[in-house]
Amino acid sequence: MLIVGEKINTSRADVREAVARRDAGYIQDLAAKQVLAGAHLVDVNAGTFVGEEVEALTWLVRTVQQAVEAPLCIDTPNPEAMEAALAVHRGRALVNSITAEKDRFERVLPLVKKHGCMVVALCMDDTGIPATAEERVAIAEKLYALLCGAGLTPEDIFLDPLVQPISSGDTFGAAVIDCIRQVSVKTPGVRTICGLSNVSYGMPKRKLLNGTFMVLAIGAGLDAVIVDPLDSDLMSRIYAAQALLGKDRYCREYLQAYRKGKLEM
Amino acid sequence: MLIVGEKINTSRADVREAVARRDAGYIQDLAAKQVLAGAHLVDVNAGTFVGEEVEALTWLVRTVQQAVEAPLCIDTPNPEAMEAALAVHRGRALVNSITAEKDRFERVLPLVKKHGCMVVALCMDDTGIPATAEERVAIAEKLYALLCGAGLTPEDIFLDPLVQPISSGDTFGAAVIDCIRQVSVKTPGVRTICGLSNVSYGMPKRKLLNGTFMVLAIGAGLDAVIVDPLDSDLMSRIYAAQALLGKDRYCREYLQAYRKGKLEM
Repeated sequence: MLIVGEKINTSRADVREAVARRDAGYIQDLAAKQVLAGAHLVDVNAGTFVGEEVEALTWLVRTVQQAVEAPLCIDTPNPEAMEAALAVHRGRALVNSITAEKDRFERVLPLVKKHGCMVVALCMDDTGIPATAEERVAIAEKLYALLCGAGLTPEDIFLDPLVQPISSGDTFGAAVIDCIRQVSVKTPGVRTICGLSNVSYGMPKRKLLNGTFMVLAIGAGLDAVIVDPLDSDLMSRIYAAQALLGKDRYCREYLQAYRKGKLEM
Repeated sequence: MLIVGEKINTSRADVREAVARRDAGYIQDLAAKQVLAGAHLVDVNAGTFVGEEVEALTWLVRTVQQAVEAPLCIDTPNPEAMEAALAVHRGRALVNSITAEKDRFERVLPLVKKHGCMVVALCMDDTGIPATAEERVAIAEKLYALLCGAGLTPEDIFLDPLVQPISSGDTFGAAVIDCIRQVSVKTPGVRTICGLSNVSYGMPKRKLLNGTFMVLAIGAGLDAVIVDPLDSDLMSRIYAAQALLGKDRYCREYLQAYRKGKLEM
């Protein structure tokens, strides 16, 4: 299970303020803590800096990469900010994201090809985010064909089914779980990724829903998760799920996490 | 999701002592609490009363049924005790269990037919408990054919894949999850059931493993679970999983459980 640490996002007040005052120490500490807790990639998002995103995002990339070896997840829908961030990124980034929206696809694809990076492909097109698993899978197949046709290898594509709140549709959780299960058959080699918190928007006991949803998604075959790696309940459940699904030889990682005091409950 | 309350089992010291002194109040209180917490059936097991199981189990059946309306799960491998318990049980019991062991099958089947009850069918035969999903599914298909051939309807059969500890085999969890997923296709109409605690035997943080395993099993299609309904973490995850899998219309049961203060985290 690939863990993408989600904390360096300016939608969080502490991060927004740290970026505004260019507090490298604060950001680097947050990056280092996430990697220590198990993040394989560190997400950077400066989306709230409207009009100054290019400067803020490139500063984040440089600042974080001074502190950690892990590659970054360049998280922006803005092709200018993405291009500037990729230009200063060292190593192989994951770009978050491309979609099947015509304009966005045509602007992001050349950047992905030029920098040889991995890419998160969101299951949405110019008609928006689909409601059902079947519509998501159809967009996934389209993105798969387009991206592989452009020379990407399937392993470098991370399909994100796009989680929507079950408070706005009681089948929206099931649609994502079904989509994850289906794409492993219909777009072979491609990996799946998703975030968690949208699913519980508008509902009580959000941590309960988020953690349970993550385990259901892992059971359906999820390959990567965008998550707060400092949330020890979630991280404990990732170790547990991997051991229970036969993906942890001799339960070694689970037992090691236990000995390091990382497991909750 | 059908909840079988597991607490009235003489392998627990408090229950053993209560049965030994025929303390009806203690047992009835435990039965009522489980039903109030969400149990649809109440398991009764007097297996530790070797040589006196018939008397102990029939006393349990009578005692519990004086307190609750819920049907019981008659939990014994002993055909004499099962027969005596069924003779005093009011309504339609679930018998736990029949297997594909020749002798046990031939002794239990007539009781199931005579009393028209539902039955838990364990995926094991005279060669023991299988290691893989495929072997479990093969036994499930055999039991399905035999039981349906004897006149049972598929809906009255609860297949139990038999959970074994991941500490003794790191693919044992996955084998059960795969089996649950496969039997819905290969033995249509049949329901699946399992207990949880065996999976974590010999491992640290057993509650973490049991709860995560339950969510994975529900995601794979589990229909019924043998569980402690007074464990509010487990019960919370059942409500959450049902809502996330689109099995809770308008998330009504989840929200109702929240308002009643039943949801943890």
